[in-house]
Amino acid sequence: MITPHQIPGYEQIESAHEAVKQHGRVTPIHTCAALDDMCGLKLFFKCENFQKTGAFKFRGAITAIDRMDDQQKQRGVVTHSSGNHAAALAKAASLFGVTAHIVMPSNSSKFKIAAVETYGGKITLCEPTFAARRATAESIRQQTGATLIPPFDHPDVIAGQGTCAKELLEQVPDLDVIIAPIGGGGLISGTCIAARTLKPDVRIIGGEPKEADDAFRSKQAGSLVGNDSIDTIADGLRTDLGALTWPVIRDYVDEVVTIDEEEIVSVMKTVFDRSKLLIEPSCTVAVAPALNRKSDLLSDGQRVGIIITGGNVDLKALPF
Amino acid sequence: MITPHQIPGYEQIESAHEAVKQHGRVTPIHTCAALDDMCGLKLFFKCENFQKTGAFKFRGAITAIDRMDDQQKQRGVVTHSSGNHAAALAKAASLFGVTAHIVMPSNSSKFKIAAVETYGGKITLCEPTFAARRATAESIRQQTGATLIPPFDHPDVIAGQGTCAKELLEQVPDLDVIIAPIGGGGLISGTCIAARTLKPDVRIIGGEPKEADDAFRSKQAGSLVGNDSIDTIADGLRTDLGALTWPVIRDYVDEVVTIDEEEIVSVMKTVFDRSKLLIEPSCTVAVAPALNRKSDLLSDGQRVGIIITGGNVDLKALPF
Repeated sequence: MITPHQIPGYEQIESAHEAVKQHGRVTPIHTCAALDDMCGLKLFFKCENFQKTGAFKFRGAITAIDRMDDQQKQRGVVTHSSGNHAAALAKAASLFGVTAHIVMPSNSSKFKIAAVETYGGKITLCEPTFAARRATAESIRQQTGATLIPPFDHPDVIAGQGTCAKELLEQVPDLDVIIAPIGGGGLISGTCIAARTLKPDVRIIGGEPKEADDAFRSKQAGSLVGNDSIDTIADGLRTDLGALTWPVIRDYVDEVVTIDEEEIVSVMKTVFDRSKLLIEPSCTVAVAPALNRKSDLLSDGQRVGIIITGGNVDLKALPF
Repeated sequence: MITPHQIPGYEQIESAHEAVKQHGRVTPIHTCAALDDMCGLKLFFKCENFQKTGAFKFRGAITAIDRMDDQQKQRGVVTHSSGNHAAALAKAASLFGVTAHIVMPSNSSKFKIAAVETYGGKITLCEPTFAARRATAESIRQQTGATLIPPFDHPDVIAGQGTCAKELLEQVPDLDVIIAPIGGGGLISGTCIAARTLKPDVRIIGGEPKEADDAFRSKQAGSLVGNDSIDTIADGLRTDLGALTWPVIRDYVDEVVTIDEEEIVSVMKTVFDRSKLLIEPSCTVAVAPALNRKSDLLSDGQRVGIIITGGNVDLKALPF
C-alpha cells in the first residue's frame, strides 16, 4: 500500500538519473524558428520521442527495475498497459535480463502489440476492460511472484519521469515556463518535484485533453475527481490521476489548460509540417497552450520548455 | 555559361558557411542505438530534415542569393523545380526581400505547392515537361531580369551544399565513411570537396535509386551518361548529373550503391519506426547502404555519417 509520504523528493530524482543516463538517452532539445514566429515565444522541445522505446516512459520503467533487488528481478515484473509504459517496461526489463509480463487489452492496436513484442515483453491479452486488465495482472503476479510496476502512481516511476525535467533544466537553465501533458500525472508530478528544486520560479503548466479533464476539474474543485469520459485521440492520457500524483499537481502545477480534439489534431499537423518532429497526439496538449497562447502565464518572448512525450505514432492511422 | 573550372574549392564552402550559419541552422546529429545494432556500425545522422524549409537545399539557395549584388537582388531570382529547391529558394529570397519566381509543373502535388506558397514564392504553373519548365523560366528571366538559380549545377549552390559535410565533420570529426544521396549531384559534390580538405581519408559513398542510376552507370562507363528512366519514389533524385557535379563525382566518390524501390520503402519505414526521424524517400538511398551493409567499403564498428537530406514527406501519401 502506497501512502502519500512516498512521494519522492529531488534526491530520488537525482539518483534515478544515474540509471536513466546509463541505460537510456539524454534526449536532445529541438527548436523551430517557424513555430517560435507563430506564437511569439522561444520554444525548447525536450524530445522524448527520441528516448529509448520512443517515449519518456522508459525513464520510470528503468528506474523501477534498477531499484529492485536480485530476488525481485528473478521473479520478473508485470504491468497492464496498452501503450508506451508496456513497451518501456519490456525494454527496461530486457536490459536487466528480467521477464516482463505485459497484460494488454485484446483490442490493442497491432502497432502497439508489435512494439511490446519487439522489446521482448511476454504478452497476455485480456478482455478490454480495466477490471479484466487489473485481474489478469494480479493473477500473473500471484502465479509468478512478479513485481507490479504501475504506469505512474509509484514513487520510483515518478522519480524516473522527473529526470526528464531535470535534464531539460540542465540543458536550458533559463526557462520561464515548462509545459507537460497530464494523463495519470507521473510525468508532471516528477517535473514539478525537479523544477521546484532546480528553478523554483519556473511556472508549470499542464496540458490536458478537454475530453479527459480530471486534472483541470480536480484543481478547480480542490479535491480529486475522476474522468467522466476518456473519449480522446490522445491515447496516452485516457487515465485518472493517482493518489501520489494528485497532491503534487494540486500544490505545484500553476495552471491546467484543456485542449479540444480538433485543436489536438491541428497542432499535431502543424508540428509535423513545420518542425519535422514525429510526435504522438498526447504530446500536442503540451504544445497547444504555447503555440496558440492559451494561458495568461505566458508573455511575449518567454522561454518555454515543452516536453515532447513520445513519437510512437501509427503513421497508417493519422487523424488528418 | 558555366565551365568546369568553376567547380568551387574548399574556400568557397568556408565562406558560404558564414551565410548559412547566419540565416539557416547548424542542424543536429542524431544517433539511434536500435539502428546501430541492426547493422553493426555506428551511424551519425546529419539531420537536414531540421534545416530551414526542411531540407539541405536551403544551404545552396541562401549561398547563391547572399552572393548576388544589390542590382541582381532587386531583379529577383527564378528557378524551375517541383521540390525542395523551390521552397528553399523562396524562403532564402524572402530573407533578403528578394522576389523568387518559381516555375512548377502543373501536376505538382498540392503539398509542394503549399510549401512554396508558405515561403512567399511567386508561383507560375506550366505544362509538366522539362522543356516547358525551362522555357517558362527563361521567359520570366527575360521579362524580369531575374537571375536563374538552378537546383545543383551552379558553383554557389554546390559550395552551399558543401557546408553540410563541413558541419558534419566539425560535429563528428572521426568519421570513417560519409554517405549521401545522388540526384543532380550538388550535395555529394559539395560533400566531396569539403571532405577532401577536412578529412582526406574519409570514404565517400553515394546512394542512388536503381531506377535513376545515372551516376552508377556514368562511374562504370567513365563518362557522363543520362538516366534511361526516372521511375522512382525518391522524387528528389529524378535528375541527371550536371557538367559541374559529374567531374567531382567521377574523381572523388569512392562507390555508388544503387537501391531498388522496395528497399527504399522498407528502409523508410524502419527509420520512422526505430529512430522517429521523419525522412523523405530520397534520404533512404543514403541510409540503406549502411543499414543493409551493401558496400565492401564498410566494416564492423565503423563510424558512418549519413546525410538525411530532408523531411518534407507528405504523410497522407506514405508508400507503406
